[in-house]
Parts: sequence; structure tokens; C-alpha cells
Amino acid sequence: MNTVVPVILCGGSGTRLWPRSRVSRPKPFLPLIGELTLFEATIARCPPSIGFAGPVVVTGALHLDHVEAQLGDVEQPSVIVEPCARNTAAAIALAANRLPEDAIMLVCPSDHWIGRPDAFASAAVAASQLASEGWLVSFGIEATAPETGFGYLRQGEEILGGSGAKGFRTAQFVEKPDLETARTFLSAGDYAWNGGIFAFRVKDFLRELATHRPDIDAAVRKAVESGWTEGHRFHPDAELFAAVESESVDYAVMEKTARAAMVPADMEWSDIGNWAALHDAVPRDSDGNSIRGCVGELVDCRNVLVDSDGPRVSVIGLENAIVVVDGDDILITTTAGVQKVGKLSGARNQ
Amino acid sequence: MNTVVPVILCGGSGTRLWPRSRVSRPKPFLPLIGELTLFEATIARCPPSIGFAGPVVVTGALHLDHVEAQLGDVEQPSVIVEPCARNTAAAIALAANRLPEDAIMLVCPSDHWIGRPDAFASAAVAASQLASEGWLVSFGIEATAPETGFGYLRQGEEILGGSGAKGFRTAQFVEKPDLETARTFLSAGDYAWNGGIFAFRVKDFLRELATHRPDIDAAVRKAVESGWTEGHRFHPDAELFAAVESESVDYAVMEKTARAAMVPADMEWSDIGNWAALHDAVPRDSDGNSIRGCVGELVDCRNVLVDSDGPRVSVIGLENAIVVVDGDDILITTTAGVQKVGKLSGARNQ
Repeated sequence: MNTVVPVILCGGSGTRLWPRSRVSRPKPFLPLIGELTLFEATIARCPPSIGFAGPVVVTGALHLDHVEAQLGDVEQPSVIVEPCARNTAAAIALAANRLPEDAIMLVCPSDHWIGRPDAFASAAVAASQLASEGWLVSFGIEATAPETGFGYLRQGEEILGGSGAKGFRTAQFVEKPDLETARTFLSAGDYAWNGGIFAFRVKDFLRELATHRPDIDAAVRKAVESGWTEGHRFHPDAELFAAVESESVDYAVMEKTARAAMVPADMEWSDIGNWAALHDAVPRDSDGNSIRGCVGELVDCRNVLVDSDGPRVSVIGLENAIVVVDGDDILITTTAGVQKVGKLSGARNQ
Repeated sequence: MNTVVPVILCGGSGTRLWPRSRVSRPKPFLPLIGELTLFEATIARCPPSIGFAGPVVVTGALHLDHVEAQLGDVEQPSVIVEPCARNTAAAIALAANRLPEDAIMLVCPSDHWIGRPDAFASAAVAASQLASEGWLVSFGIEATAPETGFGYLRQGEEILGGSGAKGFRTAQFVEKPDLETARTFLSAGDYAWNGGIFAFRVKDFLRELATHRPDIDAAVRKAVESGWTEGHRFHPDAELFAAVESESVDYAVMEKTARAAMVPADMEWSDIGNWAALHDAVPRDSDGNSIRGCVGELVDCRNVLVDSDGPRVSVIGLENAIVVVDGDDILITTTAGVQKVGKLSGARNQ
């Protein structure tokens, strides 16, 4: 099989996990679960020992220091520094333009949690195999709840690739559904979450991008041609990259190509999209409570997460609630209220 | 009428309003409501302008610095420094032994809130008049809720003193009742809360103490005789005072004397006995919320008190809850849970 290059996308606005996550210190670079940061865990899931090449990290200048500090001693890394954010189609196109045309890109967001790296690795092998046969492959993440915050993929006819790789044509890309629709999807059984993890062969991706969004293809190509290298860093031309239209890879390519496929992935995935999702992903005691980072005392509490960067937190009588302490900010929210965290004035005016 | 001397009792263990109140910084010395501390407000309710003599403050050595810092420019203060805590019978007896026998003592705890100082002053005038006629007078605080945390006084036959002073014999002293009994008291209408505010003529108090608890009377007298003065401070002999039995003035004197009287007092009183009581005493917005000491943002909240010494507090979705931030301690409790605050390990292990 062709070389598989992890393409790690870094960014995020840092509002939904405020106050722990901030604009200047977004989610990927925090040790939210376990000892590794989400970024470090993303890198660690793609080791040379199972055949991955050195990673290509696409990041904004704001996060460059975090990226380089957390790359550690990874072999042959390369970092593409986006002069501005232009969404995933452009970010992936940047990486594609810097790679050999037969390389397989495994595109991974850096701010997701995967509880079973072995299952991720299996899905990655299958997806890479199908990509090497010309498919543009999405990970179809097993839906375990009627989530309304994700897009869904409907599974089509089965595809059998070489080396026993198994997948499906993607029959339909579905935008974030309402709750009723999400429940229908869950019971139907042939819908999976679209987690933004992809495998593409470089030349296929660029061909499909040129076909369906020639403007993005051409603009990114120009920005790369006029870019400059600095050690392992590559800087696309700022002015030319700013002219690229901002579009997601789903809209720009995946929903339009005739070669969209998906591989099922049941890997305890979470996008840690809010504090309730984080609480779901961390260990709890028999009352459903979790205390992280501090001395805490919970009396008559159920399903309470306490996450403090130092101060002792004592809680009496709360159920289904989250308490976060970060420097001079304290957030207390019900589990039901987590969607409103990003709209708090503290999160908006960072 | 004889001179009326405010006798201010200071102390408290600092656990029920933890973490704001601490052993080393107890409730009386904190500006919990308004700009004055409870101690300062207690002093301010007994000004020379309405005939009060300089106050006698009875306090422990631990709180002496607070007392003297907060006495400000009060005229002719005197401070009795208790070598150890021996409850209210001994504390009042100390003051009585340092005063002329015809003086009227108006005994005031220093950790209560009174919203209507004018009503306090009226009750104090009536109580002092009755005391000057030989009654041992308790303030009977109008009961406005079936509280189970206070003792109650049952009103007996009316007493008419000189100058139109009106009161009642105290027919019965009742210990903290259960909720059912408290409801009965409230609907009966002739029960009042016993708030620990008293008026006594010195010689009457000492005579009744000698009659009913001669041991306490004699032991305090000895500790005073062997005590020493230091400017406006008086130090009872430590060893002799330690030998005094610890007893409340209610048990030692009030429940036993034949001369117990009460004056009604409807003065927006609160003992600020826990965080819920504090929340009841401070201004609220139309949703019942209060934010004190910090920038706070409350979204979808009702009846939430936020009291922070600095950090911003953002709350989503809570009802009937209290959030307190004090240095390295954060307390979050439901209103129903406030009775358990003193049992938190933070409050116990100060």
C-alpha cells in the first residue's frame, strides 16, 4: 500500500469548553482526558510502528507554539502554517499540494477523543486501502445516541477492497438533524456520525477538488507556489491564501464526488464538543461524579463534574451539573445548559 | 433611667458561613450585608446620641485585633478579653462584674443583622426601662417563619413599666422545636424567637446568677478579682476563668428566674445563620438572583446567590443555589443543603 500520511488539522475557537479552553489555548492542546492532550493523542494514534509517515500538521500562527511544543520527538514532522483560517477544504488542499500525488492522506481533526486507538487503527487501514483504490473515504462513526450536533452519513452498497478492506459507498450526507430525525437515524441502523476523519489519495482529492471547486483548487495551488519554507515549516503566501474561499471539505468535495465511501468505526469516539461530552468521556464514581485537578468534596451530589486548576471545590446537593475553575473564571452549569457556554460573555469576549 | 451600657458578645466558630467566614475571621467581622460589618453595625445601633454609654465588648483573644480595628472612634470603649470561651452566662457575668451595680446592660450578640435599627432602638428603650424596674428582659423577636433553628419565648401576662414601657412576662422558654411544633407556634401568635438580646440591671443579673448558679457567679467573680487591666482592656485571670462552667445565660438564669420578661421586637432580624439566611437578607433582582463582589453572569437562573471575592462567576441553569468564592475555596450548595456547610471538611479543618 502507498505511504499513509497523517494530516492533522488544528484550530478551534475555544468557546464551548470555556473557561478551560480559550482562544489562545484551544481544546486540542489541553490534557482534557488522561495525560496526553488531544493533539498529542492524535499524533500518538498514527505511529511509524504501524506504517504511518511523519505527520503534516495544518495550523494557524496562533497555535504554532502549542503545536511545536507538543510534537515532541515525533519523526519527520512538517507543519503548514495557515496565514488565516479558511475551513477544511483549503486546509486539506494545502497538505495535498505539499505531498506526492500517490500518498494517502489520513485527515484527522486534533480535538477529538478516541477511547479505542486499536479500533481507530483498524478503520484507518481499511480506509487507506480503499483510498489507494481511488475512493474518497469518510470514517462512519457508530452512532450511539440521537445526537443533533453532528452530520450523519447514510451507508450505501458494500465495497470490498484489496487486502480484505471493507467499506460502503456513502449513499447520503445529512446535515445536523433535529432530535426526531436523529432518533429515526439511530433506530434505522444504517446511519453513522460524520466525524471529519477522512482518507484520500492526494491525486484523487486534488482532481475532485478541481472538478467541483476549481476556484479553491486554483487559489490554494497559487498560495502554495508562492509560499516559503522555514525548516520543517511551510508558509503559504498570506495574501493569496486569504483569497481562498472558506468552505468545508464535506460541502466542497465529499457531497459532490461520485467516489464517496465510508468505513465503519466503533472506537469510543467523542468530539468533546461541550462539557457534558467531556464528562461522559472521563471516569466517574458510583454516584456519577468526577473530580479533576483539585481537592473536591461532593455531598449529596449525582452526575457532577468538578474540574479545577487548583482551588478546592465543595459542592452540596447538585445533580447533573458541571463546575469548572480556570484562573479567574468559574463556570457552573447544569448538564442541560452546556450548549450555552459559548454564548457567555466570558467566552465571547476573550 | 439608669445608664444603658451595650454589652457586645463576640465569637463564633466560623463554620456555617464557610468559606467566607473562617475560624480566624468569623462572621461578626465581615461586611456580609451593606458596608458595615455585623460587629460595626451592632456598635452603630447603640450610639451615645440616643443615650447609650460606651460599649463593653466581650471577646476572645483570637478576635481582639478584629474588635479593636473595628471599634473605630467609638467613645469610651472597654474590651474584656476572655482567656477561653465559657458561653454566655460567664461572658455576661464578666461584664456585670466590671460595671456599677445600677447600670443597665443591653446584651447584644455581634453577629446578627437588624434591618430596622429604629425598631431595635424602641425595643431597647422599653427593655431597659423594665430592666431598671428589676425585670430580666429578653427581646422577643417577631417570628415570621416556622424556624427550627431558634429557641422560642412564649408570651405571658402584660407588664406596664414606667414611661409607658410595655412588655410581657415570659411564660415559657422553648428549645429549638421540630417543624411541626414551630408551625404551631407561628399560628398561635404568642411565641417569639429568642435572639439572645437581653436587658439586665447589673445587680439583678448578679443576684439571680448567684441564686441559680452560685458556682458560675463565684468563679467569674474570682477571675475578675485576679484580673488585670491594660488601657481599655481587661483580662480576667486565665486559670481562674478556665475553671468557670460553660453554660448559656438562658439555662443558667433566664429559665430559672421568676423575673423573666420579654419585649416584642419586629425589626427585620436575622441571625445570618447560614448562606440561605444571608441570601434572604440581601437585595435580589426580579429573578431572585444576587451577585456580590464580582462580575457575574447568570443565565436561566432563579434564586441564585453568587458571592465572590474576585473571580468572575458564570452560572447557567441553576435554581435555589449559592456560590461562594473565597481565596482558594469554592462552595456551591443548593439552598436546601446550607445546613451541611459546617460539616464540610473545608469548614471543619481550618
